[in-house]
Amino acid sequence: MLGPSDLSVYLSGEIHTDWRDQVMAACETAGLRIDFSGPVTDHGASDDCGVVLLGEEDLPFWRDHKGAKINAIRTTVLIEQADIVVVRFGDKYRQWNAAFDAGYAAALGTPVIVMHPPELTHALKEVDAAALAVCETPAQVAQVLAYVQTGRLPGR
Amino acid sequence: MLGPSDLSVYLSGEIHTDWRDQVMAACETAGLRIDFSGPVTDHGASDDCGVVLLGEEDLPFWRDHKGAKINAIRTTVLIEQADIVVVRFGDKYRQWNAAFDAGYAAALGTPVIVMHPPELTHALKEVDAAALAVCETPAQVAQVLAYVQTGRLPGR
Amino acid sequence: MLGPSDLSVYLSGEIHTDWRDQVMAACETAGLRIDFSGPVTDHGASDDCGVVLLGEEDLPFWRDHKGAKINAIRTTVLIEQADIVVVRFGDKYRQWNAAFDAGYAAALGTPVIVMHPPELTHALKEVDAAALAVCETPAQVAQVLAYVQTGRLPGR
Amino acid sequence: MLGPSDLSVYLSGEIHTDWRDQVMAACETAGLRIDFSGPVTDHGASDDCGVVLLGEEDLPFWRDHKGAKINAIRTTVLIEQADIVVVRFGDKYRQWNAAFDAGYAAALGTPVIVMHPPELTHALKEVDAAALAVCETPAQVAQVLAYVQTGRLPGR
Amino acid sequence: MLGPSDLSVYLSGEIHTDWRDQVMAACETAGLRIDFSGPVTDHGASDDCGVVLLGEEDLPFWRDHKGAKINAIRTTVLIEQADIVVVRFGDKYRQWNAAFDAGYAAALGTPVIVMHPPELTHALKEVDAAALAVCETPAQVAQVLAYVQTGRLPGR
Amino acid sequence: MLGPSDLSVYLSGEIHTDWRDQVMAACETAGLRIDFSGPVTDHGASDDCGVVLLGEEDLPFWRDHKGAKINAIRTTVLIEQADIVVVRFGDKYRQWNAAFDAGYAAALGTPVIVMHPPELTHALKEVDAAALAVCETPAQVAQVLAYVQTGRLPGR
Amino acid sequence: MLGPSDLSVYLSGEIHTDWRDQVMAACETAGLRIDFSGPVTDHGASDDCGVVLLGEEDLPFWRDHKGAKINAIRTTVLIEQADIVVVRFGDKYRQWNAAFDAGYAAALGTPVIVMHPPELTHALKEVDAAALAVCETPAQVAQVLAYVQTGRLPGR
Amino acid sequence: MLGPSDLSVYLSGEIHTDWRDQVMAACETAGLRIDFSGPVTDHGASDDCGVVLLGEEDLPFWRDHKGAKINAIRTTVLIEQADIVVVRFGDKYRQWNAAFDAGYAAALGTPVIVMHPPELTHALKEVDAAALAVCETPAQVAQVLAYVQTGRLPGR
Repeated sequence: MLGPSDLSVYLSGEIHTDWRDQVMAACETAGLRIDFSGPVTDHGASDDCGVVLLGEEDLPFWRDHKGAKINAIRTTVLIEQADIVVVRFGDKYRQWNAAFDAGYAAALGTPVIVMHPPELTHALKEVDAAALAVCETPAQVAQVLAYVQTGRLPGR
Repeated sequence: MLGPSDLSVYLSGEIHTDWRDQVMAACETAGLRIDFSGPVTDHGASDDCGVVLLGEEDLPFWRDHKGAKINAIRTTVLIEQADIVVVRFGDKYRQWNAAFDAGYAAALGTPVIVMHPPELTHALKEVDAAALAVCETPAQVAQVLAYVQTGRLPGR
Repeated sequence: MLGPSDLSVYLSGEIHTDWRDQVMAACETAGLRIDFSGPVTDHGASDDCGVVLLGEEDLPFWRDHKGAKINAIRTTVLIEQADIVVVRFGDKYRQWNAAFDAGYAAALGTPVIVMHPPELTHALKEVDAAALAVCETPAQVAQVLAYVQTGRLPGR
Repeated sequence: MLGPSDLSVYLSGEIHTDWRDQVMAACETAGLRIDFSGPVTDHGASDDCGVVLLGEEDLPFWRDHKGAKINAIRTTVLIEQADIVVVRFGDKYRQWNAAFDAGYAAALGTPVIVMHPPELTHALKEVDAAALAVCETPAQVAQVLAYVQTGRLPGR
Repeated sequence: MLGPSDLSVYLSGEIHTDWRDQVMAACETAGLRIDFSGPVTDHGASDDCGVVLLGEEDLPFWRDHKGAKINAIRTTVLIEQADIVVVRFGDKYRQWNAAFDAGYAAALGTPVIVMHPPELTHALKEVDAAALAVCETPAQVAQVLAYVQTGRLPGR
Repeated sequence: MLGPSDLSVYLSGEIHTDWRDQVMAACETAGLRIDFSGPVTDHGASDDCGVVLLGEEDLPFWRDHKGAKINAIRTTVLIEQADIVVVRFGDKYRQWNAAFDAGYAAALGTPVIVMHPPELTHALKEVDAAALAVCETPAQVAQVLAYVQTGRLPGR
Repeated sequence: MLGPSDLSVYLSGEIHTDWRDQVMAACETAGLRIDFSGPVTDHGASDDCGVVLLGEEDLPFWRDHKGAKINAIRTTVLIEQADIVVVRFGDKYRQWNAAFDAGYAAALGTPVIVMHPPELTHALKEVDAAALAVCETPAQVAQVLAYVQTGRLPGR
Repeated sequence: MLGPSDLSVYLSGEIHTDWRDQVMAACETAGLRIDFSGPVTDHGASDDCGVVLLGEEDLPFWRDHKGAKINAIRTTVLIEQADIVVVRFGDKYRQWNAAFDAGYAAALGTPVIVMHPPELTHALKEVDAAALAVCETPAQVAQVLAYVQTGRLPGR
């Protein structure tokens, strides 16, 4: 009790599994009042937004650049608004943007929760060191958020 | 989805065309929830506010100075409140205040979207370099804002 | 139009005339949506709060000190929350706290409006230099605030 | 009057007496509009949260570490959101976390109210020096908060 | 010992007595390493700088305004560079600029030392409340600075 | 006296006249200790740096973009290090980058000195309103800097 | 190699043992270039500074208050100047000021190293959670500082 | 000319090639005055520092955690001191710490230069979007730094 009545949480990182849906569903089931946000999870839209919105490019570098900057508008606004940033690293892809978001949030002093499988521990040790919680599953993320808002542990 | 549910956007720059109305209308048609703000677009009021509100001046310098400072109250408050600043440069006038607003927003870390015709590219290269999107039309600005809030590209 | 829909204004300085009431009444008449705040204007309460709330003191210095610090809780919170700080200097009293508030707001980058009779111009030149508007009457303050929120000048 | 219409207050420190309930009840009786928050006051949950939420630990150091970091998510969010931080020191326990919270709030420029019995004055002199009010009872804390919001002293 | 090896101290306020010289001489005698700065103490130069440097003005308001802004360049730079700000209030003049400087320094989190005769205690209670030391004489200011740098009290 | 012993001044704006040399020569003649910096004044180098350093581009937009961003490294570092920013506007070119620098410095709270011919007053009124001195000649800029550092007016 | 060539380290906390001398001697032996600072370690001077420098007080509360505020000038300046803050907790005394300093440094984003005997682990878990290294001995503190500056581990 | 006389550059990222030596040698040959810093490039020391300095750990997670936090002391200090951060991504390893550093620097407003082979463009597009220069070779990094400090392009 006496926790934050309104909580904004940005869900950064991996966009190829349904981990965001799992976290949000678990929080909704638990009756939490959390305003979730996240990156564009439609991989095609995220990659193409620059050229679709602002015009085609011949070179892949500028094609990527235009799109990444438009996505950065969104990410900057949402991370600045967030009380907590959750960053998910998966087995696939290099996900440098996820680590970038974690560094950005850490520099702002915003609490970071990291979620990754245990076999990534050594590779992610610097990111984990900046985090206030290191989870392995969406259910753990949801329980940590529940504890932050309600002060109650599961089953107590 | 998962975008910013509330978004404050300041529309800086040119006040002699209806580009703001076009951006706002397009965003409303798209069903976006954006709180727009902007400078006083009544050119006469913007120029005269100092002497009308606080007393006449003999010298043009102080007449301008008094007015510009009152407008600065408004601009400062609105840019500080904005999540995104859009800056429009047109063919006419020097619009140094638009570039000033862009620099102010950039220093605050607020995302900047620039809109100008392509023939101004070389003259505006430093401002463009600080922006996260460079648009040519109000429709593009609206579509970028739509993507930021909804994560959806037009026609998909 | 397109001005700040919500505006927080702190009314600092002189507490022995009804200038705050005049500003607020004029803004209400003009239909503005402004959330006003200010110091405790009950002079006795403001002076006595330290010893009434936290216990008597023998020495005047500590009596004043305890009270001034409690008032500082209030002032700090309100100036931090304010979009604009209005500071009124009158003929009587030294009102160093008003000038202190102006310096505090200026350092935060919050726009400052000053109100004082013209005969104080030389003595207040440093404070005026940090202000974005220098008014003489409550009506002027209200009109400046109206222009900031609505973009309209009186009589136009 | 003219005080902060909405006020967020974080109640830090001692979790073994009902001082928070007393402060909140007194504020509610006085009709104040304050959004209170505080640490998890279930001592067991606060101590165990790390291992319950994120997995058992063999060593007490890491068991404590995991829990303290999860509690830090909550504390960081709430202190950043608070307009005022109240810190209570009691006779028992060392309560270094309470002093840590006071230092954290002071560095943010957030007003700090301290509450402790008079016999702790010498030991707490550095914390008291950073506070804007030093109270002895929950009733005093509530009265200070009432004065901050309403500008009225009790019995006047 | 173990104090700040280099210390920048800004001496704000009254310019009509030799209190700055007294503070600096006492610190030099004590062997302190302090980089002192302060406002322009040539009253005429301080008042005239605007019109002498940037051209005459007909109206006293703008004459003062131009000068006060040029002095503000100096003051802003020096207060931002200072580790400690000392503010002296005397019997004469209203010295609103001194109180402005105190508020500015307080908002930056820079420690403030105030110096004034005891009869000004009630009028300066808000400024004193924001200060970390309230002195009456230049000798006291110098001794406080000596203690800050050397950790030694006089005569010990 | 008692002015800033070391002063860093960034000279922004027009690169087609020798105004920087005039300001620096006058300050050197006056015996000032100022560390001047400024943009790359070799117009060709400034325009070409992107493609020369990082590879050719087909499109003018990206050619400009690459160069402007490299220049932004320099500008960002130098404006952050500067105690004062001087911005010069001339008759030719639109110099939006100069206004951008002024806005950037203003948002950082760094004092801005503007220099421009009087016929630009109306067009530059918003920039002038954010400046602490508006000069017309390099000699005036140098004299303002001399006053800031030495507290002495010319001829006194 | 490639470490910070100059490093400022503030040694906070316990003043009744010679742990500071041990840390500094070990760093000097290792040839490190570190500028150490710390609180006044003459307990009597630290307690008496308020009344010795600014005049006697009848009440212990104000006697402590005056002294603690003067010490706060020193502490504020030194912690703001420090790159790293080391905080030592011992068996004796409650050392709330040490925890206050740790919280202050943490809010500034300054790295904190904590040193305490293992039996204090549970009581200090919140402070440890905010630290980047938890040491037990002065030799460990010195070795961590050596590694930070030189990148070399002992015996390698 | 007129560039930054002193420049601090942090070289983040890949530690398995000699790219830092190449950048530094090229800058030294060019006569630049740059104070370089970087992470510990002795992989073993970087991995082992936690347990060597602060005691062995049974679990790999805590072994990594202790070490990563000690390295974070160093990284935090150096990135805060740096005027420019260069981040190198290579083919091997995931280098999430490099992306974390880039995000941290970006949030501080510190200019970022990225260096990576072109085949990583798509994977690094978000990091590139936050950078002011994207290089492929150490020679390019050195030339960009040379241009920032001297304003001269190679061969001109």
